[in-house]
Amino acid sequence: MGGFRLLIVGGVAGGASCAARARRLSEEAEIVVFERGDFVSFANCGLPYHVGGVIGREEELLVATPELFRERLRIEVRLQTEAVAIDRRRQRLRVRELASGRESEERYDALVLSPGARPIRPDWPGIDLPGIFSLRTIPDARRIRGWIQEHRARTALVVGGGYIGLEMTENLVRRGLSVTVVEREAQVLPLFDPEMVAPLAETLQAHGVKLRLSESVVGFEPDPAGGIRARLSSGAAERADLVLLCLGVQPETELARQAGLEIGERGGIRVDAHLRTSSPRIWAVGDAVEVKDVVTGRWGPVPLAGPANRQGRIAADVIFGREASFRGAQGTAVVGVFEETAACTGPSEKALRRAGLWGKEGPFEKVFLHPGHHASYYPGAEPIALKLIFRRDNGRLVGAQAVGRAGVDKRIDVIAMAIQKEGSVFDLEEAELCYAPQFGAARDPVNVAGMIAANVIRGDARIAHWEDLEAFSGLLLDVRSEEEVRRGRVPGSVHIPIDRLRERLEELPRDREIWAYCFVGQRSYLASRILQQRGRRCRNLSGGYRTYLHRGGRVAS
Amino acid sequence: MGGFRLLIVGGVAGGASCAARARRLSEEAEIVVFERGDFVSFANCGLPYHVGGVIGREEELLVATPELFRERLRIEVRLQTEAVAIDRRRQRLRVRELASGRESEERYDALVLSPGARPIRPDWPGIDLPGIFSLRTIPDARRIRGWIQEHRARTALVVGGGYIGLEMTENLVRRGLSVTVVEREAQVLPLFDPEMVAPLAETLQAHGVKLRLSESVVGFEPDPAGGIRARLSSGAAERADLVLLCLGVQPETELARQAGLEIGERGGIRVDAHLRTSSPRIWAVGDAVEVKDVVTGRWGPVPLAGPANRQGRIAADVIFGREASFRGAQGTAVVGVFEETAACTGPSEKALRRAGLWGKEGPFEKVFLHPGHHASYYPGAEPIALKLIFRRDNGRLVGAQAVGRAGVDKRIDVIAMAIQKEGSVFDLEEAELCYAPQFGAARDPVNVAGMIAANVIRGDARIAHWEDLEAFSGLLLDVRSEEEVRRGRVPGSVHIPIDRLRERLEELPRDREIWAYCFVGQRSYLASRILQQRGRRCRNLSGGYRTYLHRGGRVAS
Repeated sequence: MGGFRLLIVGGVAGGASCAARARRLSEEAEIVVFERGDFVSFANCGLPYHVGGVIGREEELLVATPELFRERLRIEVRLQTEAVAIDRRRQRLRVRELASGRESEERYDALVLSPGARPIRPDWPGIDLPGIFSLRTIPDARRIRGWIQEHRARTALVVGGGYIGLEMTENLVRRGLSVTVVEREAQVLPLFDPEMVAPLAETLQAHGVKLRLSESVVGFEPDPAGGIRARLSSGAAERADLVLLCLGVQPETELARQAGLEIGERGGIRVDAHLRTSSPRIWAVGDAVEVKDVVTGRWGPVPLAGPANRQGRIAADVIFGREASFRGAQGTAVVGVFEETAACTGPSEKALRRAGLWGKEGPFEKVFLHPGHHASYYPGAEPIALKLIFRRDNGRLVGAQAVGRAGVDKRIDVIAMAIQKEGSVFDLEEAELCYAPQFGAARDPVNVAGMIAANVIRGDARIAHWEDLEAFSGLLLDVRSEEEVRRGRVPGSVHIPIDRLRERLEELPRDREIWAYCFVGQRSYLASRILQQRGRRCRNLSGGYRTYLHRGGRVAS
Repeated sequence: MGGFRLLIVGGVAGGASCAARARRLSEEAEIVVFERGDFVSFANCGLPYHVGGVIGREEELLVATPELFRERLRIEVRLQTEAVAIDRRRQRLRVRELASGRESEERYDALVLSPGARPIRPDWPGIDLPGIFSLRTIPDARRIRGWIQEHRARTALVVGGGYIGLEMTENLVRRGLSVTVVEREAQVLPLFDPEMVAPLAETLQAHGVKLRLSESVVGFEPDPAGGIRARLSSGAAERADLVLLCLGVQPETELARQAGLEIGERGGIRVDAHLRTSSPRIWAVGDAVEVKDVVTGRWGPVPLAGPANRQGRIAADVIFGREASFRGAQGTAVVGVFEETAACTGPSEKALRRAGLWGKEGPFEKVFLHPGHHASYYPGAEPIALKLIFRRDNGRLVGAQAVGRAGVDKRIDVIAMAIQKEGSVFDLEEAELCYAPQFGAARDPVNVAGMIAANVIRGDARIAHWEDLEAFSGLLLDVRSEEEVRRGRVPGSVHIPIDRLRERLEELPRDREIWAYCFVGQRSYLASRILQQRGRRCRNLSGGYRTYLHRGGRVAS
């Protein structure tokens, strides 16, 4: 029979980290990794930047090679070898060498599935035309680079405005292509809330990218002038030398399904907290599995490299008898889009609404703010648009989104840690973070977010949101300066500069609610405090005029 | 008698934030701020950068002006007015206008002391010579700028290599001066552990800065050739056109002492968690007070702007009847030194040793690592030297220090939040942080720090530290590549490359402990796992050869 035999299907991210950890835990075990593709342990998050030429050579994407696995870890890697069937009873894995078609059966004591996910490729007419690509592997990148060069491609159509879509857009622009992005939703980065991504859309357009939002591709056809013609849901058409499908991924579950492993409601392999599938000797990790969202408690695929890596490590721990479990995922993610960075952790308002968890009187509240990424008195402070979602009753943190040119990932990472530790807005308020003028502020954006949210919970600042303005019958008060108001204001607003508010108090009605706004919400917070103490009912419009503009609000002059 | 009257002594940081918060809480209260200096609410953390010309105009340093306080907040600010005595029984504050010498008595219902701290100015001969400065206020910066210009200063002596000393050094170099730094301890940034600051010393020297470590100034005298001659403890002398005293600050407690308020053991005003002094109607905030260190539980001054700001806010809350308390400080700080950034949170090993809390079998352990600030496959990854201190028994986080060129403040901020939430190394291991190749890694430095420390606690990796090498009688094993070893190694080490270790196992003794090292500790971790499983006693030298070099270890060829 031989010794303990661990087989791993899939040698990227989760599979590779599982293999390496397994070897560190056991010098005795035989460990074999089967990888359908040509490479193990490659950096697929780097692929867009390789297409764009930022990462020059393909080899740079190889985090580890089969040689390294063999030499350093005594792990056998079989490339271009597909796992085709699992015999659970006999603990056998059937694998097929892709080149020869030769099949063989491999005994296992433990089997780890890390097959990943594949790009979604809809059944559209013409989808198989040459020049239409997805990007998931090194050969994909090679084909795209080759196509651009051989066909001297000058235009590209990116279908899908999510993370990969925008990264590909930036990198195609970097290579000199004119890019059009088609996105079904009315915004780019559909995982973010729409009011957060306005700066990204502006930046994309400033770089010459054409955005076709609320549009879908319905089919492709060869263009008489050469290249591909995409027909869109609106009836319009877009011609391009190159089409990139960036519609997200779906878990690779065929092998698991065939083996009768339980599949979750959202299409991923079902695993428990120990990454064990419904079969006791089989584990699964990475993009193919469903994991628990630590905030909402819901299960679903979270195709991110960080969780995949940790899962691989945990599966190895469990297989070798450790107490280990995966705490779940919170969906922390970041994307660079030209000069802008967008990052998030925890669910968006949109996701909570979709899950039926966000209602008018529901448990959640949100605040918007626009602090500088470092002290304003030090040159180069860039505003961060920050949205914080928390529980109304106890201030417990739920999620955050941030967009800006600097310091964005830092603030989301701090909030991600706070969420992980079940922190509240009061913890953000009290956070003690790095401050020197080029790095932060005496009141870091994280502190300010916490203070604003804590003020809401304590009742010091009642807030309102722009989306409720239409149904609002009270008085809309603009407390900005004359000069700011001249450059544009919200239609129907009454203007009293903050510094004149106390002396002009009698101009304001006692019988109607007042909603106040300034540019970012700070002066109107003071206004709301003044008015509240002088017997008026007042709310502060969270995020101010800047959030109003980000929502695409109409401007009066 | 009039309404509620809040008097605040000191209008910077803590005093200013207290005043602003107080007004938002009460439109009725009369609020008066007495400031001895010429400005309120100025950015003293920006002063070095104003001297260096990065912050061009003095006005940019003014976060708020007396006009703003009056117009927007109806707060009266009396500049150049010193508080000279407190009559606690009658609740009266005696103040003196500095220009006229005129004194008056002010009634208070609540009094907040925010007098700050003053630069330490030792009683050295010649300390009052022209050309010797401290930097704490805008007029200080003005005098230094003026002196440099008028005297065409070309050389400067910075006395003290702490935060302000190094910031001043950078900014004087920026202005074209040749700078010598005299520091009493054997390292720059004495608040850091010595092995962490080696990259800073190198960078300072690369910018032409001369470091005189383990040296003190004993006196100054006019130099016959002009300028100032500093006599040093070694007997040497340094001439300079300008001397900057950067020896730290001490709490301004004269007023508090006169009033009979309790002073703490470490020389700051004693306050409770509500920032209340020993007198019930008097509060104190900012650099003048002692606060509790949340990690060690010890009280002492923490002269940082962030805590001062939050304290001011909390004092106002308490005064106006809120439940509010200051949770204590953890000493999170950051400093930029040319291209390098150094940041820390929680106590250093040095501080714990000094407090008698760190012993051989004591509760604390440490690990060193040198991860890239983002994915290594994306161009431009800069190493971060990271040290994590934690409790050996349960992994509870204690402190962290990091030095590098990018991403340093982010990692310390995340760990600061983890410490605040009483997190452990296991939380860092499981952290879900932003990852795209230009921002982080699938295993972020924070994760890696957690994994390494967790391995130590779980017993998967026994570690050793370089400082114990001298007393070590076992075998020192270098598992790096031939090429690396050729460039230098630790004297007395035996070399077996990691990839040959298993086959050359018999070369290693069974009866002696083995300590293994590689460049940063990753390959030697694998080595220690291999050896441990093959019946050898082995420890991994934390931080590897890189930490050895940072400690100034001797190199054999």
